[in-house]
Amino acid sequence: MNILDQIQIILVETSLPANIGSVARAMKTMGISHLRLVAPKQPLDEDAFALSAGAKDLLENAQSFASFDEAIADCQLVIGTSARLRHLQNSLIEPRTCGELVVKRAEQGKVALVFGRERVGLTNEELLKCHYHLNFPTNPEYGSLNLAMAVQLAAYEVRMAYLCHQQAVENSQNFAKNQPFAAVEKDYPNAEALEHFYQHTERLYKALGFIRNDAVMLKLRRLYQRAELERNELNLLRGMLTAVERSQKECN
Amino acid sequence: MNILDQIQIILVETSLPANIGSVARAMKTMGISHLRLVAPKQPLDEDAFALSAGAKDLLENAQSFASFDEAIADCQLVIGTSARLRHLQNSLIEPRTCGELVVKRAEQGKVALVFGRERVGLTNEELLKCHYHLNFPTNPEYGSLNLAMAVQLAAYEVRMAYLCHQQAVENSQNFAKNQPFAAVEKDYPNAEALEHFYQHTERLYKALGFIRNDAVMLKLRRLYQRAELERNELNLLRGMLTAVERSQKECN
Repeated sequence: MNILDQIQIILVETSLPANIGSVARAMKTMGISHLRLVAPKQPLDEDAFALSAGAKDLLENAQSFASFDEAIADCQLVIGTSARLRHLQNSLIEPRTCGELVVKRAEQGKVALVFGRERVGLTNEELLKCHYHLNFPTNPEYGSLNLAMAVQLAAYEVRMAYLCHQQAVENSQNFAKNQPFAAVEKDYPNAEALEHFYQHTERLYKALGFIRNDAVMLKLRRLYQRAELERNELNLLRGMLTAVERSQKECN
Repeated sequence: MNILDQIQIILVETSLPANIGSVARAMKTMGISHLRLVAPKQPLDEDAFALSAGAKDLLENAQSFASFDEAIADCQLVIGTSARLRHLQNSLIEPRTCGELVVKRAEQGKVALVFGRERVGLTNEELLKCHYHLNFPTNPEYGSLNLAMAVQLAAYEVRMAYLCHQQAVENSQNFAKNQPFAAVEKDYPNAEALEHFYQHTERLYKALGFIRNDAVMLKLRRLYQRAELERNELNLLRGMLTAVERSQKECN
């Protein structure tokens, strides 16, 4: 399994097919090949293929999805990017940290790097479904990276982390072929399972009269995304919700 | 003197004015503003200005030179980039090293980052006049970065090194002033408040029949410690416990 094959570049509602072509080229120069398109405004056209240059294969193999949720459903880590991120202080990461995180987590499962619409980026709802938010350290007076440039920078840092990882693996194999330390493999839920948990929580605490506006779920999502819930923790939290529900039912 | 103002991006005999426009935009997003053009094949046109987006000022202020030698004449460090660099083993550097080197040397004088012709790059003669040669760690099977993408990546690493440098300067100034680093603004609960939360959780879920051994609290503690709960999040979680308790009481 090649780590780079676990990485999914997801473009949400892209307006210009030409941009999708440039993104494909940028990805391929960095060895990343899986492209997912969420409801592009126009189908891939001549411009897209022309700008993809030698990366036509990425466009031909691109997967299409009707919604953001479906596109991230099988991913264990979702990183979103948008220019309007200043309010998401807790989950902001820079491209370098992003590259390291993506490579680390891609050893275990699929990882999504999501890029929003050309003009308006990702919606707040979409951003909330991301574990981390990638922020480029651009010029405060002019931060206008175009879509393909943003993908190029993110993909470059992924490649740098990947090359560093490969080197480390090689070194450790040379160092101790027979007795490596047992790696602690964490098991993460995918985005769909996380979403079910959030919906379950919201349903229950609305029924209890505790949730009366969006602020609560917003805070909870931020907290649990930041914590990068593991699968057994998610099961535990869902068990707690069910325990409360059961006692409610016995009561009625 | 701003370090970034010492950095000169030099484009040699560029064929397409559109590429020069994209380069200007890429430079400006990273806070670099000095562009030098060596004998471009065509004058700047509408395409160039359109693609520069909000970076028209860089095109307007671009300096033109008749030869490579004139363009680099006042620079103390010259770094050249080209796809055909394999033979220049001794002077090859990666973008990250390049960024650090450029920033370090820009404290003392002008630094040139030179990008060659779209198809054929820099000539051997030009490459020989560079102190270092920048090589991008691209996919060995497809290394086709376009001109603006190459400038974007190089400029990004310059900016990363610059921000790191600025931070170091600031820290040393704060240190000298006898002022510690700026305080982190987040508000964290103390250990006692956290402990109350854990005990509250344990009491409630034991009463609900969900907690029957120590494993559950151990997992929850591990999760919330890792997340570094903030004070407002802790209040929220305690509110949720109270909501469940209240509904239990109403029931009995």
